[in-house]
Amino acid sequence: MITQDLHSQLELRWANIKEKMDKKNVNAIILSSSANLFYTAGRVFNGYVYIPLSGEPLFFVRRPLGLIVGNIIYIKKPEEIKDQLNRLGLSIPKTLALEADTLSYNEYQRINAIFPDSKKENASILLREVRSIKTDYEIEKMRESAVKHAAVYSHVEAVFEEGMTDDEMSIELETKARRLGNLGIFRIFGSSMEIFMGSVLAGDNADTPSPYDFAMGGEGMDPSLPVGANGTVLKPGMTLMIDMGGNFTGYMTDMTRTFSVHELKSKLAKDAHNLSIAIQDMFKKEAKPGVAVKDLYQMAIQMVKDAKMEKYFMGHRQQASFIGHGVGIEINEIPVISPRSPHVLEKNMTFALEPKFVIPGVGAVGIENTFLVTENGIEQMTKFEEKIQELF
Amino acid sequence: MITQDLHSQLELRWANIKEKMDKKNVNAIILSSSANLFYTAGRVFNGYVYIPLSGEPLFFVRRPLGLIVGNIIYIKKPEEIKDQLNRLGLSIPKTLALEADTLSYNEYQRINAIFPDSKKENASILLREVRSIKTDYEIEKMRESAVKHAAVYSHVEAVFEEGMTDDEMSIELETKARRLGNLGIFRIFGSSMEIFMGSVLAGDNADTPSPYDFAMGGEGMDPSLPVGANGTVLKPGMTLMIDMGGNFTGYMTDMTRTFSVHELKSKLAKDAHNLSIAIQDMFKKEAKPGVAVKDLYQMAIQMVKDAKMEKYFMGHRQQASFIGHGVGIEINEIPVISPRSPHVLEKNMTFALEPKFVIPGVGAVGIENTFLVTENGIEQMTKFEEKIQELF
Repeated sequence: MITQDLHSQLELRWANIKEKMDKKNVNAIILSSSANLFYTAGRVFNGYVYIPLSGEPLFFVRRPLGLIVGNIIYIKKPEEIKDQLNRLGLSIPKTLALEADTLSYNEYQRINAIFPDSKKENASILLREVRSIKTDYEIEKMRESAVKHAAVYSHVEAVFEEGMTDDEMSIELETKARRLGNLGIFRIFGSSMEIFMGSVLAGDNADTPSPYDFAMGGEGMDPSLPVGANGTVLKPGMTLMIDMGGNFTGYMTDMTRTFSVHELKSKLAKDAHNLSIAIQDMFKKEAKPGVAVKDLYQMAIQMVKDAKMEKYFMGHRQQASFIGHGVGIEINEIPVISPRSPHVLEKNMTFALEPKFVIPGVGAVGIENTFLVTENGIEQMTKFEEKIQELF
Repeated sequence: MITQDLHSQLELRWANIKEKMDKKNVNAIILSSSANLFYTAGRVFNGYVYIPLSGEPLFFVRRPLGLIVGNIIYIKKPEEIKDQLNRLGLSIPKTLALEADTLSYNEYQRINAIFPDSKKENASILLREVRSIKTDYEIEKMRESAVKHAAVYSHVEAVFEEGMTDDEMSIELETKARRLGNLGIFRIFGSSMEIFMGSVLAGDNADTPSPYDFAMGGEGMDPSLPVGANGTVLKPGMTLMIDMGGNFTGYMTDMTRTFSVHELKSKLAKDAHNLSIAIQDMFKKEAKPGVAVKDLYQMAIQMVKDAKMEKYFMGHRQQASFIGHGVGIEINEIPVISPRSPHVLEKNMTFALEPKFVIPGVGAVGIENTFLVTENGIEQMTKFEEKIQELF
């Protein structure tokens, strides 16, 4: 059941989408990915949201029966969308945007064939742009996730036991997260990336290259999911990097903390960790609306170069090409904080900054936090001790 | 590192794929979905497997560095595939199969543009067909998953506590599953379905219609993931249906058991549950290589009609259109056991049979098991008490 509050929230999102459609000369948009259904309908269903530039959105629903969300039309096949537009006296859009980055080729072609005369635009990009600027309602949802996310990390010390493995630690934290309301699902834009609830990396396993563009890797527990914990026994002198997803509300926060098994003796690792915090401090000073994220990336890289830490930054055997990313319904939204990123910070963007290092023989160090871009700067949403915490 | 055993296993799979390619007049195939990479390379990576009808497969790898799997060629962009084929003196395929059901439209078009003159076929279907017949190695992996899967269910009685909620039960079982080696990831073919580790349904929540073609629904804990447990307090007289995924090896088993909170008094629910077991008994008698699954479906439906149980079968407010499905790397493989299914049982297919009922005011009943098609019949892989077990 849709609540009045959610309804006005959805109206605001539809208006934001239409504003972007107008700028891009798009007359209508069809959405069916889970992330975009959740964004535009307030829930996931099986079907399509049709948003015309003028007029109310139409919800073409295959399943579930009994859905209450707005102008609902039950259909069995997407071909019925056109019949329904005709029946309602609505015009066939001159330019129609489809989710070209998430629809499969066959799904896209099927909808394409229903509207052969409409010029096509990419709805995936359009929605990513709109969704990058969070509404107040969404910011509240992210704050809620952030608080619960931090609460999960508060259990690390108590959960630690001598001789435990990285995957045992991961399972304990997953359970804590689920009990605090984590929904489990880790939404990633793009078809190919897979990760479970997050990643716990101990010692040199952090240096195992990942199939994905991640700073950290991890062999994983099975070649079908070669990411994260690999059964490493936690031993003194190793670091333990905890990087779990924080999807408690349909909105994710991203957050990493580094622990050490007993005392951390490596000066290099300590220096690298402090540099991560210093890069975050630089962001707190420099990041604000109007700043190009590629300039922030350059400032961060310069700090790393000045400290002669390049070969450990964002991975060692394999390095990631970015130091931060937008977060929201998905873990990899706009802006992408990378050397050639076209993105410029805007008020109410939310992003995770993760300047991390991998020190061979020790493990991963550094922190990650989720930030909200405010009128004059950025606000840290994920709050928890940032120093390396020693586990005994 | 690839082991010798895995290598000969992969060679067998490549040969099976080539046999199917030959039948379909396909000269080469390009794969990049996680499921098909795992199947053809023994692990997930970021890149493409290129299988020519004649000659060794080529592994075009973007990440991770240091991968050891066969003929590896590191690339940055898919456009390099063509240059590499030219360099190796390999011909451009006349007919090329691409994963039209899993590649996004944009990804497909990008590869399409590299091979503009090649006729295109659907690699998604081809691989689904090949993968539906499991090799002995894969069957062993599934047996391993099945044993661990059953072990998870053995904890239900001990985990049950008066006044607990369905999601609390779910979290406890997820944790048990993870500790037994469940990888967590629940792989589903097709872009739109999302589920976490499985579903635990208590009482009338089982009757909440699902966005997906599932017999059981469940409101879920959040509209962003409207499936499964919804926080229902377990109360006497309710049934509790446990349907978790069994991905312990990269290969999934599927299995459902029904419990009741204290004594189950509803005769209708008990009768329906017994009918589920009777349908399974019918399958054990009738299912074997050469049998069309749609005929088995009809026999099952006839049993339901004879018992006048149609309105509760495979859901009540919303009903599913199938009673079983192939399982393997993904949860929804071939064969699909539905009224108009074209699939015929073959030796070494593996499928889950799930004749279920939803009884209003009580909850879901029925069982689900994963079966292997043998030379003369079927063999049950998931073994655990099938009667409704009362929880106190």
